[in-house]
Amino acid sequence: MGEAVQEEKNAVVYPEEQHPAKAFGWAARDSSGHLSPFRFSRRSTGDDDVRLKILYCGVCHSDLHMIKNEWGGTVYPVVPGHEIVGEVTEVGGRVKKFKEGDRVGVGCIVGSCGTCDSCEKGFENHCAKWVLTYGATDRDGTTTYGGYSNTLVAPERYVVRYPDSLPLDKGAPLLCAGITVFRPMKHHGLNEPGKHIGVVGLGGLGHVAVRFAKAFGMKVTVISTSSSKEREAIDKFKADGFLSSNDADQMKAAEGTLDGIIDTVSAVHPLGPLFALLKSDATLVLVGLPDKPLEVAPFSLVRGGKKLAGSCIGGMADTQEMLDFAGKHGITADVEVIPVDYLNTAMDRLARNDVKYRFVIDVGNSLKAD
Amino acid sequence: MGEAVQEEKNAVVYPEEQHPAKAFGWAARDSSGHLSPFRFSRRSTGDDDVRLKILYCGVCHSDLHMIKNEWGGTVYPVVPGHEIVGEVTEVGGRVKKFKEGDRVGVGCIVGSCGTCDSCEKGFENHCAKWVLTYGATDRDGTTTYGGYSNTLVAPERYVVRYPDSLPLDKGAPLLCAGITVFRPMKHHGLNEPGKHIGVVGLGGLGHVAVRFAKAFGMKVTVISTSSSKEREAIDKFKADGFLSSNDADQMKAAEGTLDGIIDTVSAVHPLGPLFALLKSDATLVLVGLPDKPLEVAPFSLVRGGKKLAGSCIGGMADTQEMLDFAGKHGITADVEVIPVDYLNTAMDRLARNDVKYRFVIDVGNSLKAD
Repeated sequence: MGEAVQEEKNAVVYPEEQHPAKAFGWAARDSSGHLSPFRFSRRSTGDDDVRLKILYCGVCHSDLHMIKNEWGGTVYPVVPGHEIVGEVTEVGGRVKKFKEGDRVGVGCIVGSCGTCDSCEKGFENHCAKWVLTYGATDRDGTTTYGGYSNTLVAPERYVVRYPDSLPLDKGAPLLCAGITVFRPMKHHGLNEPGKHIGVVGLGGLGHVAVRFAKAFGMKVTVISTSSSKEREAIDKFKADGFLSSNDADQMKAAEGTLDGIIDTVSAVHPLGPLFALLKSDATLVLVGLPDKPLEVAPFSLVRGGKKLAGSCIGGMADTQEMLDFAGKHGITADVEVIPVDYLNTAMDRLARNDVKYRFVIDVGNSLKAD
Repeated sequence: MGEAVQEEKNAVVYPEEQHPAKAFGWAARDSSGHLSPFRFSRRSTGDDDVRLKILYCGVCHSDLHMIKNEWGGTVYPVVPGHEIVGEVTEVGGRVKKFKEGDRVGVGCIVGSCGTCDSCEKGFENHCAKWVLTYGATDRDGTTTYGGYSNTLVAPERYVVRYPDSLPLDKGAPLLCAGITVFRPMKHHGLNEPGKHIGVVGLGGLGHVAVRFAKAFGMKVTVISTSSSKEREAIDKFKADGFLSSNDADQMKAAEGTLDGIIDTVSAVHPLGPLFALLKSDATLVLVGLPDKPLEVAPFSLVRGGKKLAGSCIGGMADTQEMLDFAGKHGITADVEVIPVDYLNTAMDRLARNDVKYRFVIDVGNSLKAD
């Protein structure tokens, strides 16, 4: 390798100068997780690209894990945000589905190989070469920055139509929280009228899961450590039942009654009592991501042929189907809309589960480049 | 409660006097697990019962766990044995499927409620009121004693026809080891030609799993900690590939290649490297029963939507289907036939995995009442 080339490779490229289009957002610089204004850049709109002005972005629990490097591997500065809704401002020459002014959403991924088995089946979320919306290496070798920012460019394939019937702020969390619970419900047959589903945890994901389940015509039992959530679960979200997971008698009485469980808890928790709630051959789907291993007692799975499944967002076709279904049934999240300069307080509150049920940043009205 | 009744309830009932028919076997008396001759009794042949003379009985790893109380809850004396083959000696008045002289098998269960959802679907193995073949409380309140004995009485429903084409000794392990691997292969679609299955552990269950998989027309990779098993796996059992689970490079190179895994290991072991071998949406089926919890890192399941399933023997219809399939394809276990007085040595060797691949007791020729 020639010296000149080596020198060029070693040269620092500042995020603001990497691409032609100026961009502005909020980033964390280190594992303190403190977020502050950040200037960077976005690429020009390619032939297959859609450029959007970001209007709202949800604050996902993953964002908190990532800014604090709780899963390891975070590359700083990191601009979080993968529950993005906005308005198309420019489309590339080959883009067919979208035009300027369209309301669109972008979720957790902005790239995949497009040719593997998973991609061909429409399961881009399983592609080994997926490109996450932030904190990842894009196909051009540069870092991806997420939706805590004013603008985004993504290939058409990873952009979805946002239903006219839904408000932009309340629906933003559907792009991650929504698809994260919708896909496993569909995949594991937990979308059939009359079946009985358990939803563990009544947070950002859980409350959306209850709404989808009710819209599917299912019987829903919410399971939570906080018995204070019982009234909300039943009165507000119309769950059919509630189990306090700390109440061994209640849990015992409900053994063998559920056709499936969506477990949204992102902290380490015991699975044995949840497996016991399942009927034979039924599945507990893990969609939360605790940062430490969970323990599985072999007997608790083997007896009754039960299953523990993981599930990770969804493919683009499933994401569009989820949004269309939400639009038809008027399903959104319960959100607390915040200005961008409230983000650090919001993250502290999120760490304490002090939010009902999702923060959504009003990017369009509160994020201003200095 | 009157005094006389109380006295009667407190009276010790000796196993030998509980029922009218004398029986003889070998039992463990305490958690040393030492087995020795034991006189007990069997009930008269009821209208729905089949009585058999036991000819061979396999020695399952569960027997070892049970005699040493490694799972807790063993009630002594315990007569193990649930891989039972023999010849019918008497049938009850309502029995239709069997007659004197028929070759039959009895596996892990000799009772279930018969009316629950699971029983109605033919999944007696999932019935909450199943009666295990030994160490359990039968429907008449007495203790069940297993196949390390000269005779057995069981309701017709839990007795299966033994194929004429199979030798009785080599086929005995099919009653537990065989159905334990066959049912999850069928249930999880791992019985389709061309699919690629991994079998973890080449022991009593694993070597039978490889034979079923090859008979289904599948591609089979054996995964073991003992690289010494490679030649056996490939030359003897015709596996298509072998992975040494201690060889990180080999394991890495095989990531994402398997349509499913049957994991037969009965000791605690890491699951992460096995999940990595699976394609997206694929399942690792646990059929071994380690006595301590296994650790599951949430990411390893969530990424790719993978599943960890338990599976526990099979229903009676599946058991009959398995035996018929084995009969058609000539599938048996590789066994070391032993006389009953070799049992304690056999148990020591089993604890060291020193058996290829299953001990089978020649009950008919070696068990003699003193």
